[in-house]
Amino acid sequence: MYYIGIDLGGTNVAAGIVDGGGRLLGQFSHPTPKGAQAVAEAVAHAAQEAARRAGVDPAGAQSVGLASPGSIDPAGGIVEHAFNLGLDHVPLAGMVSDLLGLPAVLENDANAAALGEFVAGAGKEARSLVAVTLGTGVGAGAVLDGKLYTGFNYAGMEAGHMVIHRGGRPCTCGRLGCWEAYASATGLISSTRAAMAAHPDSALWTFAPTPEAVDGKTAFDAARTGDPAARAVVEDYVGDLACGIVNLVNLFQPEVLCVGGGVSKQGEALLAPIRAILDREEFTRDGARRTRLCPARLGNDAGIIGAALVPVYR
Amino acid sequence: MYYIGIDLGGTNVAAGIVDGGGRLLGQFSHPTPKGAQAVAEAVAHAAQEAARRAGVDPAGAQSVGLASPGSIDPAGGIVEHAFNLGLDHVPLAGMVSDLLGLPAVLENDANAAALGEFVAGAGKEARSLVAVTLGTGVGAGAVLDGKLYTGFNYAGMEAGHMVIHRGGRPCTCGRLGCWEAYASATGLISSTRAAMAAHPDSALWTFAPTPEAVDGKTAFDAARTGDPAARAVVEDYVGDLACGIVNLVNLFQPEVLCVGGGVSKQGEALLAPIRAILDREEFTRDGARRTRLCPARLGNDAGIIGAALVPVYR
Repeated sequence: MYYIGIDLGGTNVAAGIVDGGGRLLGQFSHPTPKGAQAVAEAVAHAAQEAARRAGVDPAGAQSVGLASPGSIDPAGGIVEHAFNLGLDHVPLAGMVSDLLGLPAVLENDANAAALGEFVAGAGKEARSLVAVTLGTGVGAGAVLDGKLYTGFNYAGMEAGHMVIHRGGRPCTCGRLGCWEAYASATGLISSTRAAMAAHPDSALWTFAPTPEAVDGKTAFDAARTGDPAARAVVEDYVGDLACGIVNLVNLFQPEVLCVGGGVSKQGEALLAPIRAILDREEFTRDGARRTRLCPARLGNDAGIIGAALVPVYR
Repeated sequence: MYYIGIDLGGTNVAAGIVDGGGRLLGQFSHPTPKGAQAVAEAVAHAAQEAARRAGVDPAGAQSVGLASPGSIDPAGGIVEHAFNLGLDHVPLAGMVSDLLGLPAVLENDANAAALGEFVAGAGKEARSLVAVTLGTGVGAGAVLDGKLYTGFNYAGMEAGHMVIHRGGRPCTCGRLGCWEAYASATGLISSTRAAMAAHPDSALWTFAPTPEAVDGKTAFDAARTGDPAARAVVEDYVGDLACGIVNLVNLFQPEVLCVGGGVSKQGEALLAPIRAILDREEFTRDGARRTRLCPARLGNDAGIIGAALVPVYR
C-alpha cells in the first residue's frame, strides 16, 4: 500500500511515493511552472516520475496528497491564494485527481510537515506533536492524540499569528505583535538590520557588508565572536521564540515540540537556551511528564511524507 | 444510566446526578470543610444527598467525577496543591472511590467546565469548543473533535498562562505578561485601582469609595456614565481579553468559543467589541466558517455536569 505526496513550493514541485509507515520509496522534483493548468500537470508529471523511480505503478497508489502554501480550502480542495505559486482560487485537488485518476486531498504545508514529522521524524514514537517551522513566516502544525489537528474549518493552527507583544511590530496578517513578526527568519533579519543601523562599529558588518546581505545566520555568526550588538539581537530573538514555544507548551502540552526551518540549523545554540527558559517558565516545569523540545528531523521531506499520509491521519 | 459530578470549591462542595445527555437530575451543595478526610467525606455526603434528591440510588451511578482547582494529577487521582481547599498531595479520587464504592476520576475544574458547556451548554450542537472562564484567574478548557483535550500529561490547557505582553505584568505562574494578569477579574481590578490612583476626580470613586471596594464591575459601571478614566480601563481590558481570544481562535479554530465567569455577566457590552476585533484581526476573517463567540450558558452547573461526564469524554 503506497501513497503519493506532493510538496508545492514557489521554486519546486516535489513528489514522493510513501508507504504507510512514512518511508519515502522514490522521489522527484522539478521547477514550479506558471499558471494553474501547468502546475497541475507538473504535479502529475512529478508523481509519475517519482513512481517510476520507486518502481511502482502510479495508478496503484491509494491517493495523492498535496501540501500547499498560502490560504487554502481543504474541504473543497481549492488553493484560494498562494502568491508565490501565482495561484488564485484554483481547484487544484480536482485537477490533479482528474490527471492521475486518483482521489486527491489538499492540506496546508505547515500541517503536512507536522504530520510528516509525527509519522516518520521527531514524533515517531509519540502520540502528539507540535511542529514549528522558522522560515519567511512561522509555520506550525499539530498532531493531537494521533490525528492531524486543523480545527472545525480546517484553518488551524496559525501559531505564527499568536500575539506575544500586544501593540508591537505590524504583521502581514494585520495584527500587531504576532509571534511570526519576531520569530521568523524575516523577523530576525529585520532585527539584525536595525542593530547594524544603530551600531556602525558592530561585527555584524563583517558578516553582512550591506543590509541586503543579512540573512538568518548573520546575527548568530557575529554573536559567536562576542559582538555585543549581535549578542543582544540573538538574545532577543531567542527570548521571543521561546516565549511562543512556552505558550504552545502551556496550551497544548504535546509530547514532542520540534523546531525546523532555516534558523533551526543553529541546533543546540538555539535549542539549549530555549530549554533553559522552559525550565524556568513552563507551567508544568515541576511535573514528571514534560514536553520534549527537539529539532525537526526530516527537513524538506517532511512536507512530502506528511502530504502523502493526510488521507490516513485527517 | 447516570453519573455523579462534584465541583470542589474553596467555599462549597457541590454534587449533582447527571444523565448521559448532561441533564442535572438532582443536586446538593454544602460548605467545604477543612482537611483531606473531611473533604472526602463531604464529597460522599453531598453525592448521597444529590442522589436522594434525584430519587436514585448513589450506588447505581456509573462513576464519580471530581473537578478540582489548583494543581492536580488526573492520572493518579491526586490533588497536588489546592491552596483554597487546603489540600496538599491528597489521593482524593481513591478516597472518594472507597467511600462511595464507585470508580472515581479527577479533573481540572476549568476542563470540567469546558466539558459541561460542550455537552449541555454553549457547545451543545458543536463538535469542538474552547471555554474561557474569567475569575480570580483565567481558566480555559477545550473539547476538540468531541473529546476533552488535556495534552499528553493531562496538564493542558493553561491558556491563562499564554504571554500576550512579553515583559509585562508579573503573573502568579512566574512569567511576565500572561493573559491572566490582564484578562482575569484580578487583572481588571488592579487596572481599575491604578486608574483611580491616577485620576482622583474620576467617577470610578463614586462606584468604589475605596480601592478595597473595587470589583470586576466597577470600571464597567463607571464607563457607562462616560467617565474617561473608566472608559480607558474598559477599553484596555477588552483589548487584552480580545487579544487572547483571537490567539485562541487562530490556534484552535474551535466551532464555539464561550466566555463565562463573573466578568462575563457584562454580556454584549463585553462580547460585542470582542466580535468587532475578531472581524478585523482573526486569520480566517474572510472565511465562510468562523468560530462562534458566545456567553457560557451553564454558570456554576458547568463544573458539576462536566465532572460527571469526564469518564465518557476523556
